[in-house]
Amino acid sequence: MTDAHHDEAGLLAAVTRYERALMADDLAVLDELFAPGPATLRAEGTGVLVGADHIAAFRAARGGAPTRWLRRVHVRWTGPDDAHVVAESERAQGAGVQTQWWHRDEAGSWRVHAAHVSGGPVDPRPDPAAADDPATWRLRGAPLVAGAGTGPLQGVRIAVKDLVAVAGQRVGGGVPAWLEQAPVEQAHAPALQRLLDAGAEVAGIAQTDELAFSLMGVNEHSGTPVNPRAPGRVPGGSSSGSAAAVAAGTADLGLGTDTAGSLRVPGSFCGLYAWRPTHGAVPVEGVLPLAQDVDTVGLLARDGATLRRGAAVLLGAETGSSRPEALLRSRFLTGLADPSTALAVEAALAALSVATGLPVREVDVPADAPAAWTAAFRTVQAAQAWANHGAFVEAHPGALSPSVEARFRAGAAVGADELAAAREVVARTRAWLDGLLTRGWLCLPSTSTPAPSREAGPEGFEAARAGTLQLTTLASQCGVPALGLPWGRVGELPVGLCVLAPRGADADLLGLLEALGPA
Amino acid sequence: MTDAHHDEAGLLAAVTRYERALMADDLAVLDELFAPGPATLRAEGTGVLVGADHIAAFRAARGGAPTRWLRRVHVRWTGPDDAHVVAESERAQGAGVQTQWWHRDEAGSWRVHAAHVSGGPVDPRPDPAAADDPATWRLRGAPLVAGAGTGPLQGVRIAVKDLVAVAGQRVGGGVPAWLEQAPVEQAHAPALQRLLDAGAEVAGIAQTDELAFSLMGVNEHSGTPVNPRAPGRVPGGSSSGSAAAVAAGTADLGLGTDTAGSLRVPGSFCGLYAWRPTHGAVPVEGVLPLAQDVDTVGLLARDGATLRRGAAVLLGAETGSSRPEALLRSRFLTGLADPSTALAVEAALAALSVATGLPVREVDVPADAPAAWTAAFRTVQAAQAWANHGAFVEAHPGALSPSVEARFRAGAAVGADELAAAREVVARTRAWLDGLLTRGWLCLPSTSTPAPSREAGPEGFEAARAGTLQLTTLASQCGVPALGLPWGRVGELPVGLCVLAPRGADADLLGLLEALGPA
Repeated sequence: MTDAHHDEAGLLAAVTRYERALMADDLAVLDELFAPGPATLRAEGTGVLVGADHIAAFRAARGGAPTRWLRRVHVRWTGPDDAHVVAESERAQGAGVQTQWWHRDEAGSWRVHAAHVSGGPVDPRPDPAAADDPATWRLRGAPLVAGAGTGPLQGVRIAVKDLVAVAGQRVGGGVPAWLEQAPVEQAHAPALQRLLDAGAEVAGIAQTDELAFSLMGVNEHSGTPVNPRAPGRVPGGSSSGSAAAVAAGTADLGLGTDTAGSLRVPGSFCGLYAWRPTHGAVPVEGVLPLAQDVDTVGLLARDGATLRRGAAVLLGAETGSSRPEALLRSRFLTGLADPSTALAVEAALAALSVATGLPVREVDVPADAPAAWTAAFRTVQAAQAWANHGAFVEAHPGALSPSVEARFRAGAAVGADELAAAREVVARTRAWLDGLLTRGWLCLPSTSTPAPSREAGPEGFEAARAGTLQLTTLASQCGVPALGLPWGRVGELPVGLCVLAPRGADADLLGLLEALGPA
Repeated sequence: MTDAHHDEAGLLAAVTRYERALMADDLAVLDELFAPGPATLRAEGTGVLVGADHIAAFRAARGGAPTRWLRRVHVRWTGPDDAHVVAESERAQGAGVQTQWWHRDEAGSWRVHAAHVSGGPVDPRPDPAAADDPATWRLRGAPLVAGAGTGPLQGVRIAVKDLVAVAGQRVGGGVPAWLEQAPVEQAHAPALQRLLDAGAEVAGIAQTDELAFSLMGVNEHSGTPVNPRAPGRVPGGSSSGSAAAVAAGTADLGLGTDTAGSLRVPGSFCGLYAWRPTHGAVPVEGVLPLAQDVDTVGLLARDGATLRRGAAVLLGAETGSSRPEALLRSRFLTGLADPSTALAVEAALAALSVATGLPVREVDVPADAPAAWTAAFRTVQAAQAWANHGAFVEAHPGALSPSVEARFRAGAAVGADELAAAREVVARTRAWLDGLLTRGWLCLPSTSTPAPSREAGPEGFEAARAGTLQLTTLASQCGVPALGLPWGRVGELPVGLCVLAPRGADADLLGLLEALGPA
């Protein structure tokens, strides 16, 4: 029942070959991949075809299958040579599910012995409370800032995180006391300016967690934005309002920041594509800092194509097409997530393998490494955050909620030796990851759980944050780009698969999205 | 991949328990029968639920599943403790398919680890050429004979095989030269009279194969009736017109005869429920004989409930509820059908086991027995047929098609010793089957293939007839009742599962239908 010792690579390669043949209506390959003989089964809707010949005749007569993109491939091994595979796909219209029993014959060839297909239109059912949620936006316009009128992002509506300078507005930082003392910005932040120049417009300024120092999307001042994809759940943060607005459809791109996961986490919780760039690849000028060593400015979108177009504008470069040799997966790292999340992310990873044709390779992560890199990151982050905002915190007692204030104050206590030791761990982690990423792109859960309940309370939020930081701070401290794919599902709750590429490989990483449709 | 050494009984018992719990919305049992843990899968339509808890929550919220009746349960063993089960069902509205991966745990309990459900409305698509097919009816009325006006069969339209006396009409026997010399009948045959007294009406007189001495439904004089359920295929015979009319919906009950399979074969080819009664249980007076030792008068219907009501009237008794201990199956006997038909009948048998809760038990049939009983039957049948109609055949050269005439003439050549030896085999076969049927009801294919093509030609028809006679003549020569269930499918072609019960157990055999819905 475990796949540790099974031919995962061979099975996924066969599924890949099947999907490509299906999209190409390559009857010879499809017939080859179904087991010959009278016992093979194919079910759809209300009926079952029995026998390879009947299935082949049906296939020859139908003239191709609807285009589909796999999003989750659940693999359950039923024996050394048998796997039960349930694949979920998006279609141009709607979605579908296929169940396949694959068997490896004595010659080593994987073939389908039974299949069951279903599908139909999908009702995305975003929470209706989301569209006009006052906790999502600090300021909206129609638009708030017009774009260049033409360009690759023409008509794309941006939800700007309230850390990013919008000319003529103040930066609020998710803290009323900060907003009060903030100057009116004279210019757009350069990252925003690039998007506007490319035709995008600012729909409004979206809420953020207090000074971006939180991952849950809970803000005691402005409230917790509605998570349109997970009613009753937090949206994740700190780019909480941007994520909620994009998920609700009131914006198309979320412009936010990611220090410890502030794009990847709300992307995971709200079911969005998320991109944290290589550290330094997108200008952070005009953006309120949290911890400059690890701060980045990136994007959220409902679909991969919009994310890719927005990212190309921010990078000033078209997305690339270089591919790694493999997708790397550490079962240990994936297992840091809760069991349901780990299974969901495994299913998303298998779908990514099928969609890209890249094999999944298991890699080793030292058992004590995640705790060490997380602690080192938190030390560096806290020290820098205190250096940035300690004076404000001291000058405005009570301006921050107690849990956020405690995080800042932890930075005050970091000594020089402690900081140096932490930077040492960061340097070792970078060297280790750089080596690993020469072998492929590392895939891991974006978060350790799906979105917690809004009622989880401080301990619940802290547990989710602590579990997630072990996963998110690896990319953060190593400065590598990370792409969050919103394909996992725990019940109906989305959860992200995160792909880490070498530093500077943003264009190639985003180029992955081209194979993943819809365009 | 074979199920010879697997726990078929345990698996089907678990499927039975699951289906009953589903219909009763017994959440505790349903939850028990799904494997616990986060990896269990349930797919339906466009989505997948992962994890037993999510599946249980879904189930608790939905308030029951639509009523369904399993028609085919395809079992494919993937390992000693793992089976891939694909079940097809009829629903009150439409039909459905479920795929389940069942695994037997170390404690010996079968549980579902993955399921996929789909369904929807069904378009039965009878061949439009069938409704006004001139080869189906010799004579139609509106109605041809009215019924008693009230009774359990009120409004049921009967297609009377043209061997059965209808007052005021001649019996045609499927042969123009016979019709010419036939007297006008003074009274309805008693079997028909019973149906009329119960409120049924005669829609018309339906064509038959020549003097009932054929199984294909091909008549050189009146043509081959359209098979509404299998375009381009023969309807089977000799109750060919009755079957075609019922399948087309222009009649509700087919009143016909079964000597060597003349109800069971067209039932199988046209997808109808068929009943051959215990020899002597329904009066054959007023019906043109073929071979009195083995002639019976019985029924065809589109649904089990109509068949059951009609049979109760012919038997003069309500259907019963006694059940055997088991359903008996001989893989050897089933394997006399072609491989696709054997698989289809196996699937229907598994569905019958699930629907009734009766276990399937494998029984031995001596390897040389079917050839012996078939030869013995053919000898007895031919001798009696010649005794009945030899004079007509001699007096009307060319009145019969060559293949039918040859069958009659074979009877002329049967000597007394040969006939006695054949009767000896029949007696031994009856003794053997009587013993077997004390252990359960024997289930076997109704025919060795689905309906052959209309273009199969004499050799093709003879091959199908010869293969089928090995299966049908067992019940015929033993005088036991047989119920044909039209559940098998080879591609889109129907094929029947035939259930044999002890002599005189017709009411209990028909009582089976009560569990098999729709009412």
